[in-house]
Amino acid sequence: MILYDMIKAPNPRRVRMFVAEKSSEIFAQLERREIDIPGGANLTPQFLAINPRGVVPTLVLDDGTVIDESIAICRYFEEIYPEPNLMGSTPVEKALIESAQRQMELEGLYAIAAVFRNSAPQFADRALPGTSPSFAQSIDYVERGTAQTQHYFAALNQRLKDRSFIAGDRFTIADITAFIAVGFARWVKLGPAPDHENTHRWLAQVKQRPSALA
Amino acid sequence: MILYDMIKAPNPRRVRMFVAEKSSEIFAQLERREIDIPGGANLTPQFLAINPRGVVPTLVLDDGTVIDESIAICRYFEEIYPEPNLMGSTPVEKALIESAQRQMELEGLYAIAAVFRNSAPQFADRALPGTSPSFAQSIDYVERGTAQTQHYFAALNQRLKDRSFIAGDRFTIADITAFIAVGFARWVKLGPAPDHENTHRWLAQVKQRPSALA
Repeated sequence: MILYDMIKAPNPRRVRMFVAEKSSEIFAQLERREIDIPGGANLTPQFLAINPRGVVPTLVLDDGTVIDESIAICRYFEEIYPEPNLMGSTPVEKALIESAQRQMELEGLYAIAAVFRNSAPQFADRALPGTSPSFAQSIDYVERGTAQTQHYFAALNQRLKDRSFIAGDRFTIADITAFIAVGFARWVKLGPAPDHENTHRWLAQVKQRPSALA
Repeated sequence: MILYDMIKAPNPRRVRMFVAEKSSEIFAQLERREIDIPGGANLTPQFLAINPRGVVPTLVLDDGTVIDESIAICRYFEEIYPEPNLMGSTPVEKALIESAQRQMELEGLYAIAAVFRNSAPQFADRALPGTSPSFAQSIDYVERGTAQTQHYFAALNQRLKDRSFIAGDRFTIADITAFIAVGFARWVKLGPAPDHENTHRWLAQVKQRPSALA
C-alpha cells in the first residue's frame, strides 16, 4: 500500500501518528509519497487521477482501492492491526471515543483550519481543501475560528481536569486529534493558555510517546 | 435508555433513521424526549445538567452514560444491533463507508447547516450549535455554504452515476446522511437540480424505505 502524505500538514500527521502507535515496525513498513499541497501537487492531473477529490492523506491499497479521509484511513489500520486498541473495545467505549474524537475535530482542528486557510498567503484563493470550490479568504472565518479555538482550549483544559487522556484513562485516537490540533494552532499563533495546567500535563505526557515524532 | 431528540432537526433524524433501519421493533422501543432547540430548551440548566455541551441528539444509557454526536450514537446502535449492517463488515468496507459518510457530512450537511444557522431568524445570535460561543450571523458563511452545497449536489449526482447507493451497492449510514442533507437543504431553498437524474433515482428508492418516515 502507498500513503500519499505531506509531512508538515496536520491531517496526514494524524494517520502517521496512528500507525506509529500500532508499532514502529508497521510504521517503518509504510510506503509514503510526499505531496506538496501549498505548491498545488494535490491538484495536478497525476494526483487527481489517483484521487479525484485532491485530498491528502490518501491511502492506496495493493489492489488499487483508494481510501481517503484521515479517520477512515485510521479505521482501516485499526481493523487490520487491532492492537494496541485506539478506537474502543466495547460498544460504549467505541461510541465515547468516537464522540470525543469528533469533538476534538469539529471544535478544535476544523476551527484552527478555518483560521489558517482564511489567512495564510499560500491559500489566498483556496480557502477550502482539495477540489472544493475556490473562495477568497474571509475575515469572518478568521474571527469566528479564533474565538472557537480559544473556547476549544478552555474546554480542553476542563475536560482534562478529571481524566488522564481525552476520552478517559488511556491514550486513543481522540488524543491524536487533540495533540495535532495543539501543534496546528501554533501556525496561527493560538494555543492553550499558560494557566491551562491540565492541558500542559497531558501535552507533556503525549510528547514523550515515540509516535509524537511520526 | 433515553434519546433526547428533536423531531424536525436533521442530526437527531440521522439517529432515528439509523435505528429504524435496524428494525421497527427496536425503533418503537426507543424512549424519546423532545427538546425544542429553536426555543432554547437545549440550553436550559435542566438539559445542560444532562449534557453540558447542550447538543441534541444525546443518548443516555440506563447506567447514566451520556453519548452525544450523531455518528457516535449510531456506532453504539451498530455495535449492540449488528444486523442489518450499516457501517461495514470488512476492514476495507468499514473504511470506505466511513469515508463516504464523512464526505456527505463535511461537504453536504455542514455546508447546508452553515447557510441555515447564518440566515434563519431564530438563530440570529446562535450561528453555532449548543454552548459554542455566540456569533452574529455572517453573509460570508451563507454565500460560501451555498456554493459548497451546489458543488455537493453536482458531486452527489456524479457519485451515483455508477453506484446504486452512496458507498456502493447497498444502503449504509452514508445514505442516511445524504438523504437527510437533501431534506435539510430544502429549508434554505437548495437541492439537487432537476437534471440530476442519478440523484432523483436514488432519492425515490430511499424514500420508499420505512425508515424515511422515522
